[in-house]
Amino acid sequence: MAIVVQKFGGTSVANAEKIRKAAARAIKAKQAGNSVVVVASARGKQTDQLIADAMELNPNPPKREMDQLLSTGEQQTVSLFAMALEAMGHKAISFTGSQIKMITDSVHTKARILSIGAERIEKELAAGRIVLVAGFQGVDENDNITTLGRGGSDTSAVALAAALGAKECEIYTDVDGIYTTDPRIYKKAVKMKQISYDEMLELASLGAGVMHGRSIEFGKKYNVVIHVRSSGDESEGTLITHEVPQMEGVVVSGATIQKDMAKFALIGVENSPGNAAKIFTHLAKAKVVVNDIIQTEVSKEKANLSFTTAASDIEPAKEAIEDIKGEVKFDSLFVREDIAEVSVVGVGMRTHYGVADRMFSALAKAKVNIDSITTSEIRISCIVDEDQAEKALTAVCDAFELDKLAENRSK
Amino acid sequence: MAIVVQKFGGTSVANAEKIRKAAARAIKAKQAGNSVVVVASARGKQTDQLIADAMELNPNPPKREMDQLLSTGEQQTVSLFAMALEAMGHKAISFTGSQIKMITDSVHTKARILSIGAERIEKELAAGRIVLVAGFQGVDENDNITTLGRGGSDTSAVALAAALGAKECEIYTDVDGIYTTDPRIYKKAVKMKQISYDEMLELASLGAGVMHGRSIEFGKKYNVVIHVRSSGDESEGTLITHEVPQMEGVVVSGATIQKDMAKFALIGVENSPGNAAKIFTHLAKAKVVVNDIIQTEVSKEKANLSFTTAASDIEPAKEAIEDIKGEVKFDSLFVREDIAEVSVVGVGMRTHYGVADRMFSALAKAKVNIDSITTSEIRISCIVDEDQAEKALTAVCDAFELDKLAENRSK
Repeated sequence: MAIVVQKFGGTSVANAEKIRKAAARAIKAKQAGNSVVVVASARGKQTDQLIADAMELNPNPPKREMDQLLSTGEQQTVSLFAMALEAMGHKAISFTGSQIKMITDSVHTKARILSIGAERIEKELAAGRIVLVAGFQGVDENDNITTLGRGGSDTSAVALAAALGAKECEIYTDVDGIYTTDPRIYKKAVKMKQISYDEMLELASLGAGVMHGRSIEFGKKYNVVIHVRSSGDESEGTLITHEVPQMEGVVVSGATIQKDMAKFALIGVENSPGNAAKIFTHLAKAKVVVNDIIQTEVSKEKANLSFTTAASDIEPAKEAIEDIKGEVKFDSLFVREDIAEVSVVGVGMRTHYGVADRMFSALAKAKVNIDSITTSEIRISCIVDEDQAEKALTAVCDAFELDKLAENRSK
Repeated sequence: MAIVVQKFGGTSVANAEKIRKAAARAIKAKQAGNSVVVVASARGKQTDQLIADAMELNPNPPKREMDQLLSTGEQQTVSLFAMALEAMGHKAISFTGSQIKMITDSVHTKARILSIGAERIEKELAAGRIVLVAGFQGVDENDNITTLGRGGSDTSAVALAAALGAKECEIYTDVDGIYTTDPRIYKKAVKMKQISYDEMLELASLGAGVMHGRSIEFGKKYNVVIHVRSSGDESEGTLITHEVPQMEGVVVSGATIQKDMAKFALIGVENSPGNAAKIFTHLAKAKVVVNDIIQTEVSKEKANLSFTTAASDIEPAKEAIEDIKGEVKFDSLFVREDIAEVSVVGVGMRTHYGVADRMFSALAKAKVNIDSITTSEIRISCIVDEDQAEKALTAVCDAFELDKLAENRSK
């Protein structure tokens, strides 16, 4: 019997009615002849409540105890989910991360999975039960409860699908799939039938992903087909899979827009070895997340160094740069807060020429000013004025025909 | 270093302020030079909320899943308690029943403890940490979470005290000890300095105990001194210990009153073998809890059989007796609902004469009618009219001087 793993996020199990609805999904998959494993997150705002309870007692709680506390949220969901399934006439059994031996390292609050014991699950599936597994959690070698960090339940689900050799890992969420771009901005955006792991990773890093990067990496590593679909209706969602030949025919799969950014430009940085390292070490210490970095030499002695951050990191970033003035000499600092980043992503870029050109032409035609450009193998990003950002995204989407299904898109 | 086990019930950890107050207790015991283990229950109404959540999905939830669900309440408390201790400058670590290998049988919702792994706790105590253990829960051999039923956290605490060879198990509660009788009825009741396990077991079965019978049995079996005391103040509470010689000097240690009872009297039951068995089997099937049973022969052929139940069991008991009319012949059934039971308990009864006489004389002098009498080795109970019950208790308490400390009481 084929194994299907289904993952339901917090909003999909927020109350009794939603749990019953999710349970009906699991039953449907079972009745279609599959062995079914369900991974669930904590209900609705339960995790937020537990965090608030913790903060009231200790604003800086020990991470081990935080994991011990937060893991109860998922445990509650899966036991309730099992009860719902039994009430609906189906045999079910729930497990914590510990009970199925989801072994992780000991890095509390962001542990990484080392191994999964499939045995107990396989035994229960063989007995005809629907198996529920608490997402987001594991245990280290010494039986300390760990949690997997942001997007942890997705990672649990994909890892379980890999360990069990499942045919598919279904991620049920409040959107019905992955769109070529944000439909709130570009109304003509269409839902993708499939997308490659690499493209999805780029989209996730650009803040556009429904899923967190780690679970996608896991899917890529262990060859798990991930199906992102709606918990609200029956429509097919988007498959995240390995690259298939037809994907290369499509130059650009998706486009994203990131606002609330800032660009820092250090002008005339003395060109001595280790200066860049010093700067970024200070920023890391200040917990500033740095996105794209651009360095250009302006003379033998001096370079300009710029980088982008989230708008919320502006103050700590300014302070960190103030701190290093003694160590690293530079002429001046400019900070721009009125910017946004427009990006296009597609594995087809690897084999197609002229993608950047097409993007820049589209932006020029729309009279959008490009501040700076960064690229990766399958991505091109432009920093533009924030008030031109939506116009820019629309121009780019039109240029790459992101209003059409991939198979109908011009190459 | 001596080990002290402290147990805090749900009301003693209901909110952040109370958790901090309980944590201060643990710190005080630590600073007095003890190794400290804390057992805690679920916060305030958390368990009730989880039960309501379960009932909404399944009015008859699988017991294994119920245990999986309810055990999260205690897990939350102990992790929060550990965070509070850390915030107050003390090293702490929390454990679930599973993590300390509190192994039980597989009888979900009322499991019995088979063994406890002291090793992990001893290691953490040696490292100077205060160790928190989630009460009420364990795991069976297959790593399924179990719970210990009513009074389960008390049982966890006493069992841990036994396994660790603790010098004392402190039970913190909202009363400051065990009283000679209910102070709401007999204002002159005094707090006992100590009481034997056997007496406490009788009091618990009579509904008067602060603690559940199972934890007291555990204490008796493993020789753990149990100290019942207030979480609200620093006063010494009551020690529950093995019988000591001076206890025998005191005839009656405590007195109780039970209301909301009913007495069933079957008159003229045919005296054939197995009739009593048939009656009580039917009552058990109807889940009627039968307290005292009295049977008296009235002739060679017939006997009168009476028994008491809780008032809430009247209807099912009546139906059960209606059911057996075909199998067991009897002349008539009388049901009295306007009764109460007054009892006195004391290990001294074993060696003293005239206790019953003294009780009956006191009741006669107070003009209290005695409906029926039952006794055990260390208990005498009288069924009286409900409206005379408080007068009866007062008369009995005066007769046995329950307004005086044991050492000042006449023998």
